[in-house]
Amino acid sequence: MTKNSSNIMALAPNTSNKRETVCIFGTGDFGRALGQKMIQSGYPVVFGSRSLRTSSLIPKEAEVLSHAEAAQKAAIIIMAIQRQHYDFLTPLAEILRGKVLVDVSNNLKINQYPESNAEYLAQLVPGAKVVKAFNTVSAWALQSGTLDASRQVFVCGDDMEAKQMVMDIVRALGLTPLDQGSLLAAQEIENYPLQLFPMWKFPIFLSLGLTAFFFFYCLIRDVIYSYVYENKDFSFFLAISIPNRICPVVALILLGLVYLPGVLAAIVQLYRGTKYRRFPDWLDKWMLCRKQLGLVALAFAFLHVFYTLIIPVRYYVRWRTEDRIISKALNNKTDPFNNTNGWLSDSYLALGILGFFFFVLLGITSLPSVSNSVNWREFRFVQSKLGYLTLILCTAHTLVYGGKRFLSPSSYRWYLPNIYMLSLIVPCIVLVLKFVLIFPCLDKQLTQIRQGWERNPRYSEQSNYIINKSAV
Amino acid sequence: MTKNSSNIMALAPNTSNKRETVCIFGTGDFGRALGQKMIQSGYPVVFGSRSLRTSSLIPKEAEVLSHAEAAQKAAIIIMAIQRQHYDFLTPLAEILRGKVLVDVSNNLKINQYPESNAEYLAQLVPGAKVVKAFNTVSAWALQSGTLDASRQVFVCGDDMEAKQMVMDIVRALGLTPLDQGSLLAAQEIENYPLQLFPMWKFPIFLSLGLTAFFFFYCLIRDVIYSYVYENKDFSFFLAISIPNRICPVVALILLGLVYLPGVLAAIVQLYRGTKYRRFPDWLDKWMLCRKQLGLVALAFAFLHVFYTLIIPVRYYVRWRTEDRIISKALNNKTDPFNNTNGWLSDSYLALGILGFFFFVLLGITSLPSVSNSVNWREFRFVQSKLGYLTLILCTAHTLVYGGKRFLSPSSYRWYLPNIYMLSLIVPCIVLVLKFVLIFPCLDKQLTQIRQGWERNPRYSEQSNYIINKSAV
Amino acid sequence: MTKNSSNIMALAPNTSNKRETVCIFGTGDFGRALGQKMIQSGYPVVFGSRSLRTSSLIPKEAEVLSHAEAAQKAAIIIMAIQRQHYDFLTPLAEILRGKVLVDVSNNLKINQYPESNAEYLAQLVPGAKVVKAFNTVSAWALQSGTLDASRQVFVCGDDMEAKQMVMDIVRALGLTPLDQGSLLAAQEIENYPLQLFPMWKFPIFLSLGLTAFFFFYCLIRDVIYSYVYENKDFSFFLAISIPNRICPVVALILLGLVYLPGVLAAIVQLYRGTKYRRFPDWLDKWMLCRKQLGLVALAFAFLHVFYTLIIPVRYYVRWRTEDRIISKALNNKTDPFNNTNGWLSDSYLALGILGFFFFVLLGITSLPSVSNSVNWREFRFVQSKLGYLTLILCTAHTLVYGGKRFLSPSSYRWYLPNIYMLSLIVPCIVLVLKFVLIFPCLDKQLTQIRQGWERNPRYSEQSNYIINKSAV
Repeated sequence: MTKNSSNIMALAPNTSNKRETVCIFGTGDFGRALGQKMIQSGYPVVFGSRSLRTSSLIPKEAEVLSHAEAAQKAAIIIMAIQRQHYDFLTPLAEILRGKVLVDVSNNLKINQYPESNAEYLAQLVPGAKVVKAFNTVSAWALQSGTLDASRQVFVCGDDMEAKQMVMDIVRALGLTPLDQGSLLAAQEIENYPLQLFPMWKFPIFLSLGLTAFFFFYCLIRDVIYSYVYENKDFSFFLAISIPNRICPVVALILLGLVYLPGVLAAIVQLYRGTKYRRFPDWLDKWMLCRKQLGLVALAFAFLHVFYTLIIPVRYYVRWRTEDRIISKALNNKTDPFNNTNGWLSDSYLALGILGFFFFVLLGITSLPSVSNSVNWREFRFVQSKLGYLTLILCTAHTLVYGGKRFLSPSSYRWYLPNIYMLSLIVPCIVLVLKFVLIFPCLDKQLTQIRQGWERNPRYSEQSNYIINKSAV
Repeated sequence: MTKNSSNIMALAPNTSNKRETVCIFGTGDFGRALGQKMIQSGYPVVFGSRSLRTSSLIPKEAEVLSHAEAAQKAAIIIMAIQRQHYDFLTPLAEILRGKVLVDVSNNLKINQYPESNAEYLAQLVPGAKVVKAFNTVSAWALQSGTLDASRQVFVCGDDMEAKQMVMDIVRALGLTPLDQGSLLAAQEIENYPLQLFPMWKFPIFLSLGLTAFFFFYCLIRDVIYSYVYENKDFSFFLAISIPNRICPVVALILLGLVYLPGVLAAIVQLYRGTKYRRFPDWLDKWMLCRKQLGLVALAFAFLHVFYTLIIPVRYYVRWRTEDRIISKALNNKTDPFNNTNGWLSDSYLALGILGFFFFVLLGITSLPSVSNSVNWREFRFVQSKLGYLTLILCTAHTLVYGGKRFLSPSSYRWYLPNIYMLSLIVPCIVLVLKFVLIFPCLDKQLTQIRQGWERNPRYSEQSNYIINKSAV
Repeated sequence: MTKNSSNIMALAPNTSNKRETVCIFGTGDFGRALGQKMIQSGYPVVFGSRSLRTSSLIPKEAEVLSHAEAAQKAAIIIMAIQRQHYDFLTPLAEILRGKVLVDVSNNLKINQYPESNAEYLAQLVPGAKVVKAFNTVSAWALQSGTLDASRQVFVCGDDMEAKQMVMDIVRALGLTPLDQGSLLAAQEIENYPLQLFPMWKFPIFLSLGLTAFFFFYCLIRDVIYSYVYENKDFSFFLAISIPNRICPVVALILLGLVYLPGVLAAIVQLYRGTKYRRFPDWLDKWMLCRKQLGLVALAFAFLHVFYTLIIPVRYYVRWRTEDRIISKALNNKTDPFNNTNGWLSDSYLALGILGFFFFVLLGITSLPSVSNSVNWREFRFVQSKLGYLTLILCTAHTLVYGGKRFLSPSSYRWYLPNIYMLSLIVPCIVLVLKFVLIFPCLDKQLTQIRQGWERNPRYSEQSNYIINKSAV
């Protein structure tokens, strides 16, 4: 529902049964926007301000007082000021005793200070109950009412009751509070709005690295080789031909890397004979970014599909076709239809289309709203069964594409194999390992281990601390 | 927000104003994971355990006691044990009197026992208030914090207050409780995590059945016929040509079946002269799976689009084009441009693209997060108006594709018509019926009936029970 | 979870600790459906009815009494009757004193009455606490349990406590209450279900207007010109060729219009030297519909992509290719490969594919569930950085497509330039202005202004009222 001007009148002064007064320290953008929103939701608001210079911008329903006076009027005080100015609170310590102080501040850099702003505030005013909240919401979003980015408000604090009071306000403003535990979580909450796709970094850098490597590989094999030996200028291959070789290769390798850690984890569990030991750190991290890896792979597959479909429109392809037909016509020569080629060509295209179809399906089910509406068994079915089907189809697509060329010496220029051969290594390893793991003898033991059975129960004692950590 | 190791310290022991103690019976995976999560959210946790063997894996902030001792410490007891072991509770009946028992158990099969686990528990411990909850959440999801599959926790129970207490805990853990009514709903809640896309079964089996039928139909018409009469091997048609005939046909039939039940329902209502009588069971079920039917149809349309776009890349198509051009060039023969063919070819392609475009639009609006952000009128507009537009465009696409071939005898091999003709039956029936229904005289009466008017009010008396049932 | 017949029994009569009784005035479809749903969630329900004629359809767990008797049994009374019949409440004024009256009514037209139904109700029964709620939910959605359209229930009212009571019921029914402030918001809430994509109107009408203009433009340039001067019938261009010229042009112009208001806003802020003054109305409205403009542009880009990919399948294109090759073969003439053309053709196709890829990415991140799961910085990064990248790629795609033809006189028929030249105006203006704005001297000042700095602080006083309005 769009907030239009009629809403300003909705802040009727005659509302009975008012909610409890909230005090806001600071009359900057965020303080004012939050105050306005609270007034709209029925909270009486008092601003505590150093000066009265900017007071004309403050919502007229709110009172503006000195810090000390304002603090006395409310049980909850929202600190809409920057960490550098927290010092002025020290003289107010007595007035703030027992009050709920809500730290809404953000920093400019991740881990800018040794302790979080909220913990620093708790040290400055030891008698107050400090709650961290609202830092993920922007003043602009509060004002415009278009909370597109996020309705989630992370809340943490040591005092349960204070936290509950703040979470009630969050809910009343139409936002969703998420309890993150004690004040020690504040550091993480303060870092959150500064993050830029932290889970995507590894998949994106990996894919860019692979892209760069294969780009130079293809440059040497396809452009420089042709220039050196055949004196032909194929530099325009850089626009479509080479990207269309790189994209499927990177997509297939990334898709293989999505399923490799699961297979490795199963091997580790089988070898150890227990599931109650933590995986090595790299394996843990790898498993956590599988979804992102898969979506980056899908992006490359998407590009590959459109680069392939555009082929017949390209000038080079049209010229080559025309040239070949004319020279054949002039030489009075026709090729008979080769049934094997018909089969190979149609099969690899069909496998590719089916692989892309299931890949898109996987991508759709990883949308938050879709994955929220399926149960656990359904989610596992799609991500595991359909995922392996996609991997098999895409690997088969590449194998059939290679066809008879794997052994042909002309595919090896300067002893460099064609890059689609390199792309097959990872997915083939995954598929072979997975095939071995579904042998009844191994599969049965793995199922037992995953249900809690231990080959060597003494491990559980020594791994206590490790489990506790990984269980969080 | 990713839960990293800093969170473990967030379980600060110095949190004041603690929440009420929760007792967990059972120290298996799920009990431990739930306990850990609760401690993190500020609940003191006591484990009740038969033995102390596995105690080393239990979060160190929790106490482990005997069942009887643990139960006495808390008002809420979570039963993280399997149904087979519920017997041990009988001697504890006195201690459990008045306590809230939360049944979190799941079965291995749908309807495994005559009564639900929660009802069985309520029979065993008649003095306790049994609430069913948490069974849709997995231990792994609780541990890893990645609640991708679902944040929804179904809750049911006969005691309102007990249910409210459990729902508060659910909310405190960052999950979304959904009240499902009294304990009689437990059976359904226990079956829920065992379901595998129940609403998708009919659409998928129907589409697979249609696919199989049309596959053999095409095999006979296109491959075997050519082999018998023309001695040509078109077996490679199995990869792309035949799938690309089946996909559009199945998509169009399924799309027709999405709109057929709505039309039938209108006819039933017009005939009966009232909306206060339940539809036949099959019609009810059919109407409930329209969304799934439509999405399966979209999947087939997607495959059809990519099978069609890939056509010029196929070896067979390139060879045929080349062969035709060369033979024409050698015979010194050129065809003049046929304007009618230009129109027919461009029209059916344009209709297909527009149909696919609106079909994708329908698919996007059926995503849960999109359909949640539109109002009722907008949802109806998209699903009904745009839906019929899609059906009309796709039917017209097929009709124009057929073009002049409908009457040509060469389209009938072994008296079998081309399959696109078969695909037109259902959508044409739907469109004709819909066209009749929007005639003013019928439309006006239908609107009246849907607003509650009854031609024959005596029906309402006898249909009382039926309505009550269907209204649920 | 599907609601099946087992649920009807879940309305067990033996539930202890019942919730508070709710009274419903009116036994129409909506009253009955709401009553049924409430009984299911554990609320005892009393119906207040004028007559007993339709009583047989009422859920049998509910009592049906006269209005006066029913009202006395409950603290909350839901008005499931139409505004025209509110008069009968006047004699009941004494009984309704202090009760919570929930207005659930909707009108047939936007702003049908001078005051909202809820305000009218509050005037009729001055002693009652009127709350507006439930009007966005349909009887059918309540009955079928498939709340596909929306789970959001807008709630407003002057009495905080009454509003809280209603919001608790909303939550208990599994719906999401959204507090919209005092009863003055009721008008807007009543208009909401009658709206049909209000934010989409401007973008869609604009794009249809542009489409119509460019259609006639192309008709004149491509069909009529050819007919007049070359006597060729290119009328079949209307199906694909002309739409495929219009779509990219409209898409590019709309994409430019998405980024133009942001650039204009920056210029306005730089000129005024403050951010504390409201933008002109048209700029405000334009900025609010940028997302919709972008998605309409994406729809046109989607059509352009598929119209382009289908090119080689078209009869006209195949005939032209064939004709050209045959005439070349007969004339014994071959063209040498033109490297520049190879580069130009491949570059513009590659730029187009990359532009479309990033455009689709932007579209995916604007899905509500995706944009809800990123933080503010990430959302800005995608919508701003990736958005400009898309605009640059698409503009470059068009520029390279034009290539050497910009200066060729043959592109100007009847002095009309080709339409892709017209499409470049808006995006080029945006890109040039943006390029100027990121010059360090301007960028630094703009950043300061956006952080609250004012060149001329006296403005803040006089613009007080304006800010208050725009902040809502």
